Amino acid sequence: MTEKKIIPKKERFSEWYVTAIENAEILDQRYPVKGFPVYAPWGFQILREAFHILEHLLENEDNVLPVLFPIVIPEDYLKKESEHIRGFEGEVFWVTHGGKEKLPVRLALRPTSETAMYPMFAYWIRSYTDLPLKVHQTCTVYRYETKHTRMLLRGREVFWNEAHTAHATWEDAYQQVLLSQKIYSMFFKRLGLAFLILKRPVWDKFAGADFTTAFDAVMPDGKTLQIGTVHHLGENFAKAFEITYLGPDQKTHYVSQTSYGISMRVLGAVIAIHGDDIGIILPPEIAPIKVVIVPIPAGDDVINKQIDEYCKDLEKEIQDAGIKVKYDNREYRPGEKYYYWERKGIPIRLEIGKKEVTSQTVTMARRDTKKKTTIPRSELIETLKATFDDILKTLSERAENDLRNNIRLAKNMSELKSLIKKYGGFVKVPYCSIDNDGAACAEKIKEETGADVKGVLFPEPEKPEGNAKCIVCGRPAKYIAYIAKSY
Amino acid sequence: MTEKKIIPKKERFSEWYVTAIENAEILDQRYPVKGFPVYAPWGFQILREAFHILEHLLENEDNVLPVLFPIVIPEDYLKKESEHIRGFEGEVFWVTHGGKEKLPVRLALRPTSETAMYPMFAYWIRSYTDLPLKVHQTCTVYRYETKHTRMLLRGREVFWNEAHTAHATWEDAYQQVLLSQKIYSMFFKRLGLAFLILKRPVWDKFAGADFTTAFDAVMPDGKTLQIGTVHHLGENFAKAFEITYLGPDQKTHYVSQTSYGISMRVLGAVIAIHGDDIGIILPPEIAPIKVVIVPIPAGDDVINKQIDEYCKDLEKEIQDAGIKVKYDNREYRPGEKYYYWERKGIPIRLEIGKKEVTSQTVTMARRDTKKKTTIPRSELIETLKATFDDILKTLSERAENDLRNNIRLAKNMSELKSLIKKYGGFVKVPYCSIDNDGAACAEKIKEETGADVKGVLFPEPEKPEGNAKCIVCGRPAKYIAYIAKSY
Repeated sequence: MTEKKIIPKKERFSEWYVTAIENAEILDQRYPVKGFPVYAPWGFQILREAFHILEHLLENEDNVLPVLFPIVIPEDYLKKESEHIRGFEGEVFWVTHGGKEKLPVRLALRPTSETAMYPMFAYWIRSYTDLPLKVHQTCTVYRYETKHTRMLLRGREVFWNEAHTAHATWEDAYQQVLLSQKIYSMFFKRLGLAFLILKRPVWDKFAGADFTTAFDAVMPDGKTLQIGTVHHLGENFAKAFEITYLGPDQKTHYVSQTSYGISMRVLGAVIAIHGDDIGIILPPEIAPIKVVIVPIPAGDDVINKQIDEYCKDLEKEIQDAGIKVKYDNREYRPGEKYYYWERKGIPIRLEIGKKEVTSQTVTMARRDTKKKTTIPRSELIETLKATFDDILKTLSERAENDLRNNIRLAKNMSELKSLIKKYGGFVKVPYCSIDNDGAACAEKIKEETGADVKGVLFPEPEKPEGNAKCIVCGRPAKYIAYIAKSY
Repeated sequence: MTEKKIIPKKERFSEWYVTAIENAEILDQRYPVKGFPVYAPWGFQILREAFHILEHLLENEDNVLPVLFPIVIPEDYLKKESEHIRGFEGEVFWVTHGGKEKLPVRLALRPTSETAMYPMFAYWIRSYTDLPLKVHQTCTVYRYETKHTRMLLRGREVFWNEAHTAHATWEDAYQQVLLSQKIYSMFFKRLGLAFLILKRPVWDKFAGADFTTAFDAVMPDGKTLQIGTVHHLGENFAKAFEITYLGPDQKTHYVSQTSYGISMRVLGAVIAIHGDDIGIILPPEIAPIKVVIVPIPAGDDVINKQIDEYCKDLEKEIQDAGIKVKYDNREYRPGEKYYYWERKGIPIRLEIGKKEVTSQTVTMARRDTKKKTTIPRSELIETLKATFDDILKTLSERAENDLRNNIRLAKNMSELKSLIKKYGGFVKVPYCSIDNDGAACAEKIKEETGADVKGVLFPEPEKPEGNAKCIVCGRPAKYIAYIAKSY
């Protein structure tokens, strides 16, 4: 029951974020290797619940099946797709020795699994009847990040789920991009997160992809956070790894592929976006304990015994309804317990004293709104269930409003500069091109504002008004582009 | 629908084993790094189901909470417990570079997580009120095995669950050993496996443990397979990592610890022990699909349409009962489909033709006994559920019989030698000691028979008759020891 004093979230967000995570015992950062977090029991249970939802959606909404591939990739395989390796070679961890022996080939700790999986895809795919092939795995990947690491947002060991699909045609893979985005949207909505889906500029796409789309959320400090990506890989890896199939036309064709992933960053987003000045607030579905029962002693042993029994009955009733519940009968003052469980983000607290026992009621406190209500005991389970739904609704609406209020419009560079400086968030501007010929304008924006061109809405980019010009080069603006500083 | 011809299991077990795994599409061994398997969708789904059962037991029968620790351990931490590192240093994979930079400290890929977790335990444990501490993680560990690797039995990347606990006293940790064994026993029984729990001789204990106990099963070729271990670590790691607590006596004490683990070997045991001359047989609880429905076309389109609808109705009914089912309406002959799903190990097949539709019945074929019965449709769900239970019972009884029939008794070295040679399995002998003073006799047995002293029954070793002598040295026999050749 020790905790650090927490700073108001709006005041200094980064400090709030670290303290909220430490006080909830999500991660321990004291492990002696930089960027390698220890997930404590509370944190890992939340993460596991979230990833179970994701896996369930992938498998049941789209028949993407679970696999597990090795963590090491031989150097020559990692290097097969030339653009891909250029994107990753600076940040790969290398395994060079086994026992006292030097290994004949250096092994990379996978930074992502395209080059581990696709040599096997080449074995598995023979005919068009083997397509589509869709697999996913929940695992850890490794990046030798030289940038400053941040809890759950940037580290060297990344917990994630990655999915990989192969299709007969480029168009089929494009349809998969849309379907995968739909599934990711369902997932983020279950966690109450709001996001934009943007197509990244060509200079910011995944190394080896035809194009990259990403889910961006806005953090409380106005920086955006990429919480998921979906890549159309075209035939790039298929050509590097010779993944071909015999079509109904009896000819050999390359497959078209997609890959997409969501990491532990999503938990960072949940913590940052839903939390308040006390600490984290969990969407009920991923809370390892959804209801905590706190007894209020009455200073009379007979009544205290009645309270204890009433609490035990409630605990059993809630448990039998399939809801994870904890009866906290530890020797602390009720106020201390309230604060303890609030910091852990538990959605609902029940306070049970003499009044509740006598009147056969339950006093219920919501973590999200802090509102307390007293309800008849007979209505407990249905009220809990309805309240879980309402908590998610409340969190979702707050997040959606925060996102919408953080999208602003600039008509020229000086407006852009001042909006980015004053608010952060997304600023929309008329923009020339997200192909290579737009890269110079993005560099100019970066120089002037410190912000990046994050892309255009996908699948339908917003079109600027008739004769709008790019705010940098003055050429005709093809798109409304989204500009932001990001994590 | 291609498969390799399978050899009868009794004839050449190792070949049968490889073919059974390949035909069921459990693993793919073609990954270009030796000892690093690819778990294909069917195999990984089975493995995941099995480990979910294990995790659920750990968390609900004993409040062992899930965590996730980093995969890398700095060299200096790995070396802190001197006996531990002597046991592992020859088989550790080393990460030496990040990008183009040499790392300041070499990082080991964890061979097991004691030395990753316990530095953090030293932070987490302050007072006796923090004890017991119990955590587990499902992850992969790495061993640079120089021995011949075998699918699911010996590899360089090992999928496992490891649990770690810390207690106030040695006796508390001893009680944990018993409780953990009880939980592991429940787990193995859910998979239909039979085993002995042996205390290993001191020369075969886990490096750094006070003592090691292990679960040994007997494989069809008579070799034993260690499918789980539970170690009492005493204060050895506590002293190396300074894990202490303030007792109620206001004094500082070292904690006593246990660690225990079960790997993907358990899936190897399930496949090897339950399988038959067709291929693998899955205990229903871990089968990703528990029932397959195969239509028998009638050569008449109207009737075929009725069969198709009947099958779809059955599929829905079974699904609604929460049982994973597949309606296989692919364009193959029924016999091909039967064989396909038998090779995958699916517990129950329903065969639906004109007869079944007309009489509103279902013909049900069991994978384990191959018996077919026809039942009224109205009894389908209850019959399926009862049959799942009965399949587990049948598999368990077979395994239990195989184990019991593979324990033999030898009165002297020549009997031991001939029993090991003729049958394999366990041979019980009067034996002097499993402490250091018994090591020379074990070496002698190894020389003469090729078999090892696997230990004595735990917690209660069998006592030899009055004046029995060790079959090697002739000193008084303290124990009945179990001798076996093992994987």
